[in-house]
Amino acid sequence: MNTNTQTTRLYHTALSPYCRKVRLVLAEKKIEVELVEERYWEGPPDLKRRNPAGKLPVLRFRGNLLAESQAIVEYLDEAVPAPSLMPQQPLERHEVRRLCAWFDDKFQAEVTRPILNERVWKKITRSGYPDSRIVKDGLRAIKEHMDYLAGLLETRRWLAGNTLSLADFTAAAHFSCLDYISDVDWDRSEALRDWYATIKSRPAFRSVLADQVPGIHPAAHYAELDFG
Amino acid sequence: MNTNTQTTRLYHTALSPYCRKVRLVLAEKKIEVELVEERYWEGPPDLKRRNPAGKLPVLRFRGNLLAESQAIVEYLDEAVPAPSLMPQQPLERHEVRRLCAWFDDKFQAEVTRPILNERVWKKITRSGYPDSRIVKDGLRAIKEHMDYLAGLLETRRWLAGNTLSLADFTAAAHFSCLDYISDVDWDRSEALRDWYATIKSRPAFRSVLADQVPGIHPAAHYAELDFG
Repeated sequence: MNTNTQTTRLYHTALSPYCRKVRLVLAEKKIEVELVEERYWEGPPDLKRRNPAGKLPVLRFRGNLLAESQAIVEYLDEAVPAPSLMPQQPLERHEVRRLCAWFDDKFQAEVTRPILNERVWKKITRSGYPDSRIVKDGLRAIKEHMDYLAGLLETRRWLAGNTLSLADFTAAAHFSCLDYISDVDWDRSEALRDWYATIKSRPAFRSVLADQVPGIHPAAHYAELDFG
Repeated sequence: MNTNTQTTRLYHTALSPYCRKVRLVLAEKKIEVELVEERYWEGPPDLKRRNPAGKLPVLRFRGNLLAESQAIVEYLDEAVPAPSLMPQQPLERHEVRRLCAWFDDKFQAEVTRPILNERVWKKITRSGYPDSRIVKDGLRAIKEHMDYLAGLLETRRWLAGNTLSLADFTAAAHFSCLDYISDVDWDRSEALRDWYATIKSRPAFRSVLADQVPGIHPAAHYAELDFG
């Protein structure tokens, strides 16, 4: 293992939307990164030393340890400005951040966390069987979210406006985790399916599409670029 | 009621750390605001129209509706630059955002939400009696958080560095909610008590210190500026 403190290294876990968001932004900015998979649920001893919050992702970049996914991607957008993933005007920047929070807070609480907890983490940590009621609630909630996003895309090219932004990568990070286990009904909205197909076909998405979680097979269409 | 769309208006609820954070930043920037208290737990019909996420705070500012507290305060700092509440360097800005997320995510989950749920919201919504085990867990967790913050203040004047920032107002928003019901043991750290006494004595804090939640009396020292 390269121990040069200047190596960019991301401590992460595969099906975490927060870790994927940072991976996608690093890749979009063409920053090479060494990925270190952490089994954080086993409480690795160095995790709290690297991030006192005890959470992933943690990014080592230019000799500094950075934590909290939104704080990391905003930092990356300021420290490595090209390509820019934030618009210039304060009101447009607010819309990007509002949608990032929408996914990292509301979508996470209503969709990503309950579905992944039941269908992935319980299996990985051998802590029981999926509760079908919770999964069903999550699959009901995702429909409302998809309808809301489809509504946004009626007047916008990307989620937060007409330029690709952190909001798209945040959303795609969540959807890609759910798509791995085939829990997104892409037939619900053509606009949203086209949006996802477009972002998924970017070179930045390759690393995420190559993920293989031991014991959990990806859906057949997961890594296909034309899934329409 | 003034229906001029240019009136700055904050839809909020009193003991919400997210609403308080926006109130504090508005006041620090000397932006006059009309406060509209929303009983969001009763699902007021206009809440989802103003913010599809169905959450408070919502700020009407210069004719726009803004949501998500962190997105709002970052917007305010960009749209109304003086006094600045963000440092200039990307790494320092990351530290501010990391600590904002620390409070709005970790501190909220481990301390603010469980304690306020049990001791305030159950009373306001008449949905049962406090679970003393949950309150006790919250009071145990706050000690660890206070020790961590006291450690930061050993080398810093303010929480994220040597200048007052959004991190201090985010932290103070959470602490002030808990202080209202007297759930902060300020004897635990002199440095943290001094930090809070300093920020609490700013004119921006006056509105928050004047809050009176019906049926829930503030602690005797809540609005005192010298509580040491």
